Amino acid sequence: MPSAVVAGASGYAGALAARLLHAHPEFELAAVTSRSDAGVRLDELYPYHRVPLTLDAFDVATHGDVDAAIVAYPHGASAPTVSELHERGVRVVDLSADFRLRDPGTYAEWYGEHGAPGLFGHAVYGLPERYREQIRDAHIVANPGCFPTAAVLALAPLADLVADVVIDAKTGVSGAGRAATQKTHFVTVDENVSPYGVARHRHTPEIEQELAALGAEVACQFTPHLLPIDQGELVSCYVTPSRRADLGDVAERFERTYEDEPFVEVVDVPPGVRDVRDTNFCRLHATVDERTGKVLVFAAIDNLWKGAASQAVQNLNLMFGFDETAGLA
Amino acid sequence: MPSAVVAGASGYAGALAARLLHAHPEFELAAVTSRSDAGVRLDELYPYHRVPLTLDAFDVATHGDVDAAIVAYPHGASAPTVSELHERGVRVVDLSADFRLRDPGTYAEWYGEHGAPGLFGHAVYGLPERYREQIRDAHIVANPGCFPTAAVLALAPLADLVADVVIDAKTGVSGAGRAATQKTHFVTVDENVSPYGVARHRHTPEIEQELAALGAEVACQFTPHLLPIDQGELVSCYVTPSRRADLGDVAERFERTYEDEPFVEVVDVPPGVRDVRDTNFCRLHATVDERTGKVLVFAAIDNLWKGAASQAVQNLNLMFGFDETAGLA
Amino acid sequence: MPSAVVAGASGYAGALAARLLHAHPEFELAAVTSRSDAGVRLDELYPYHRVPLTLDAFDVATHGDVDAAIVAYPHGASAPTVSELHERGVRVVDLSADFRLRDPGTYAEWYGEHGAPGLFGHAVYGLPERYREQIRDAHIVANPGCFPTAAVLALAPLADLVADVVIDAKTGVSGAGRAATQKTHFVTVDENVSPYGVARHRHTPEIEQELAALGAEVACQFTPHLLPIDQGELVSCYVTPSRRADLGDVAERFERTYEDEPFVEVVDVPPGVRDVRDTNFCRLHATVDERTGKVLVFAAIDNLWKGAASQAVQNLNLMFGFDETAGLA
Amino acid sequence: MPSAVVAGASGYAGALAARLLHAHPEFELAAVTSRSDAGVRLDELYPYHRVPLTLDAFDVATHGDVDAAIVAYPHGASAPTVSELHERGVRVVDLSADFRLRDPGTYAEWYGEHGAPGLFGHAVYGLPERYREQIRDAHIVANPGCFPTAAVLALAPLADLVADVVIDAKTGVSGAGRAATQKTHFVTVDENVSPYGVARHRHTPEIEQELAALGAEVACQFTPHLLPIDQGELVSCYVTPSRRADLGDVAERFERTYEDEPFVEVVDVPPGVRDVRDTNFCRLHATVDERTGKVLVFAAIDNLWKGAASQAVQNLNLMFGFDETAGLA
Repeated sequence: MPSAVVAGASGYAGALAARLLHAHPEFELAAVTSRSDAGVRLDELYPYHRVPLTLDAFDVATHGDVDAAIVAYPHGASAPTVSELHERGVRVVDLSADFRLRDPGTYAEWYGEHGAPGLFGHAVYGLPERYREQIRDAHIVANPGCFPTAAVLALAPLADLVADVVIDAKTGVSGAGRAATQKTHFVTVDENVSPYGVARHRHTPEIEQELAALGAEVACQFTPHLLPIDQGELVSCYVTPSRRADLGDVAERFERTYEDEPFVEVVDVPPGVRDVRDTNFCRLHATVDERTGKVLVFAAIDNLWKGAASQAVQNLNLMFGFDETAGLA
Repeated sequence: MPSAVVAGASGYAGALAARLLHAHPEFELAAVTSRSDAGVRLDELYPYHRVPLTLDAFDVATHGDVDAAIVAYPHGASAPTVSELHERGVRVVDLSADFRLRDPGTYAEWYGEHGAPGLFGHAVYGLPERYREQIRDAHIVANPGCFPTAAVLALAPLADLVADVVIDAKTGVSGAGRAATQKTHFVTVDENVSPYGVARHRHTPEIEQELAALGAEVACQFTPHLLPIDQGELVSCYVTPSRRADLGDVAERFERTYEDEPFVEVVDVPPGVRDVRDTNFCRLHATVDERTGKVLVFAAIDNLWKGAASQAVQNLNLMFGFDETAGLA
Repeated sequence: MPSAVVAGASGYAGALAARLLHAHPEFELAAVTSRSDAGVRLDELYPYHRVPLTLDAFDVATHGDVDAAIVAYPHGASAPTVSELHERGVRVVDLSADFRLRDPGTYAEWYGEHGAPGLFGHAVYGLPERYREQIRDAHIVANPGCFPTAAVLALAPLADLVADVVIDAKTGVSGAGRAATQKTHFVTVDENVSPYGVARHRHTPEIEQELAALGAEVACQFTPHLLPIDQGELVSCYVTPSRRADLGDVAERFERTYEDEPFVEVVDVPPGVRDVRDTNFCRLHATVDERTGKVLVFAAIDNLWKGAASQAVQNLNLMFGFDETAGLA
Repeated sequence: MPSAVVAGASGYAGALAARLLHAHPEFELAAVTSRSDAGVRLDELYPYHRVPLTLDAFDVATHGDVDAAIVAYPHGASAPTVSELHERGVRVVDLSADFRLRDPGTYAEWYGEHGAPGLFGHAVYGLPERYREQIRDAHIVANPGCFPTAAVLALAPLADLVADVVIDAKTGVSGAGRAATQKTHFVTVDENVSPYGVARHRHTPEIEQELAALGAEVACQFTPHLLPIDQGELVSCYVTPSRRADLGDVAERFERTYEDEPFVEVVDVPPGVRDVRDTNFCRLHATVDERTGKVLVFAAIDNLWKGAASQAVQNLNLMFGFDETAGLA
């Protein structure tokens, strides 16, 4: 049974990854680490995850002695640790943005200096529905951002049709992380909704990269909005097609693309995020507005699950040859 | 002091209208009526409005003997009552959709048969920022829908620029009305967000009518989403301009259009619905995304206030020659 | 593999019971029934439960041909169906109140006429932590009410000490059931908290019966409050002890009572309902206020899980000789 | 028109006090101050309060030159500033706990060293329903804590009857203040409820002091619980009476005590906090449980209004001889 470590397990996504690996039938969770909460038991921070392990300070001499790692650090901080683990032969899924972009110039433009430039380009983008075969052999997997996960799954079946696209996203507060700030204060969020990162959210180039890889070279209009919910993400995509779109054709594209996918549900009613809460599912609904000619696609995921931790486990399952759904049912 | 009646005061918007008129310095609230709750005190249904009146069954012989009326019935049911009151010389603000559309064919297409075809076209569209002078003289004012209020205020300054527009709206549950249904059940809404009325919401033709009146003949892509909040509405508009838009020009348009408006705030940060809760304000933020060339406008209102009841009072203030802000500060 | 039916699966507790049995390693979910939603797929009503079965109208000729049943009807309506199934040899867990009380007079006083008086007194009260051995052999198990589950687990270790007790409970809206009413309307509940059933809630005699069975003959002051959460229940118990209580002794009582219980957690910090969301756990914290001499006990459960559906499955596990935790981890 | 300053206006209660004084017909809001946010406009921090003033760093040389002050500092930090203002002849309402307790030993026991011992005992406890006449002449008013406000109003009519009392309180998050901590993080609070300050909340001695002043020498069992709402506080009181209580007598006591009070509502249904949101009202419901003999009283207030800022304005109205309801309707 391969052993695994979760580095950065005191954050929301890391803690959930620890829970999933702790209960996983094929992995042994050997250790959990935290820079800020070393010495604290994880089930004290997160009683509901019920992981009875104490958080260690990360030390590659110890924690590099495993088969698999999920690294849940902020971008920038992640790359050096991924690099250290990689050098020790550990196969890593990185939850940060550090290895998602394939163009160094784009990374520099949106994120600044990279923490391990030598590894840039060595990672596989960890969206199983797109890169399943490459993930099986990967040593470093860059787990997708939550919004790109939903947006790319929503738009992939239409890639050759997208002339223009508006992506309006709505997300729960856990996506902003565990740091206590005015933005995450209950009183700020409660009974409120507002856009953020307007015209400059860092998931934009990631979505564009993946759409381009599918053949759609398009500048995306992406705007997230913060909602008074803890988990869940709904991505509403408004596609101006390059040629007339037909509802039957659109339906068939989604059916065909996802018919064998264990974690993508194509449905004929608008999805709600509650439908996918605490699951690895992405729930999709596509339609055509005959009046405007636009194609509308709505994608719901749980930002902490398919948008982060459970997708990381899905990737680990692929990397180690296990049933892709192991530990995720 | 003119006397006023609120017909349909047991619903959310009607009850709020009653509260505003009850506390209004220039009107006397003579009666409140309800088809379903006649005999019940309004402050029993809505303790927080503190209106110590008993709901009557509507009877034009009695309730037509006033100067002003706000009718808060569902569309279809409203027109006959508006007609009765109008015949008695009462000046009416109608909260329903019955008199908002100016084209009978469009009404028939989206709503079906009209309840008072003889009056069709006699109402003024009650958006003071657009039709202030006509409202002063109007006998029937069609109070705008909540989404059109926000969307038209958001887009009016750009009307000559709009080649295409996506309007993604987010609204609280009070917009769905007081009827208890699976859609408004707490457990359905809580921790959820989902689109509804996809490609067929009835506020679409209303928005298009008002944009056309401003010179923008465009098919709008309008989609509302239901949020776990009680009051509040955020409308996110993504405009593809017909020619290159400049941020300075956009800013100046908004400044110029709304500089004298008592209830429109143009701000340089994204608005949240909490900023306008329990007020008649519309809070607007416009920007240009240099990457995509699109113009983004975000409008926040309280759907029960500026989106319904307080805008109705604003209209009554105009109709009766009072300070437009009376009773709304 | 024993087969099971869930009767009344369109309600919240019944639907969850169906989900748990559908995924259970030891039972086969043969059918789900509903009086109101026959013909509808359960995963259409509850996408998040992902049970791909169609709801049938209940017919004992068909649905009585199973080994086990969970009946999730309202009280009064439940007893006749339980009776029918029982006559067919089906072992039944009843989620209603019909078989919880052991004194017919008390039942009559709080609930009225009983629907199957011949079976009155034949059921075992389904709180495994109290009646584990009797449940193993039971043919009818009366699943406890949600509040009694939490209150009895909170007070059992102190039973011989209780001279007086105030039980102040806080619950989520799912406890009020799926019926759409003004009480469960989002706008009523949101940003609100209020007591209900003051001095007359029907869980009072059930709590008193179980405390009496433990030796504490006391009239409980029980008051529930409705909170803006969907699931979760916190029960705050304020015990006036019959003799001076010592913190060490209290702690030892809880430790000793629950040390082998798989689903009771005794902790040294105040519990929150989030700690037990979507689990069969009851989380308990007890302390002594040295100033007042009172013993305080706080119990958190998920009202739909330990307070209803998962406790029913725990009971079925016992009745059929399976690991008590099967399907509940 | 007397001038007023709000010191500590960047916190929730101070900001609301600023809004109320800014819109007050009888006071002129001369300045708002903040230790942490000096230089920031108040309407940037709190758009919804719409107070177009810039926060100053407090300087008694400038800000002492007013007639009235509301000081909204944390306890301990407040006393020295109150003292400075008092020496300048400013009449002060202090929102902190610094001057609420009348016994120095009790203050020391629960709060530690006092910041202005020379003034200890010089303040009037600012509960108008109890100390109206003394408040009129006071130079320093200690605004009551939010829980004591509700609890004392709930119990005052029963003071001579109280042999024992359990006070179970439920409060919104704004009561925890604007500081961003794990406790106030949205994800911590959402879908949760938990007790805090168990057996040691500092409002306990304040409640006991005021009950003793009413003749009830009793050790109160007070426990607050944190709810996922922003504003609002419900206090559930369970009174064991010293002699048999009669419902008619209880009702008459409440009626008599509060019949002339402008801000206390005695009602015959259980109150919800939504009923009093954004108001200075305390809404009370009392009943007798015939089974247990206990008297139950439920009190709802808005913790930021009657529990803090609007009660402070009510006190200022009294101190300066204005209509007690001025600026609070």
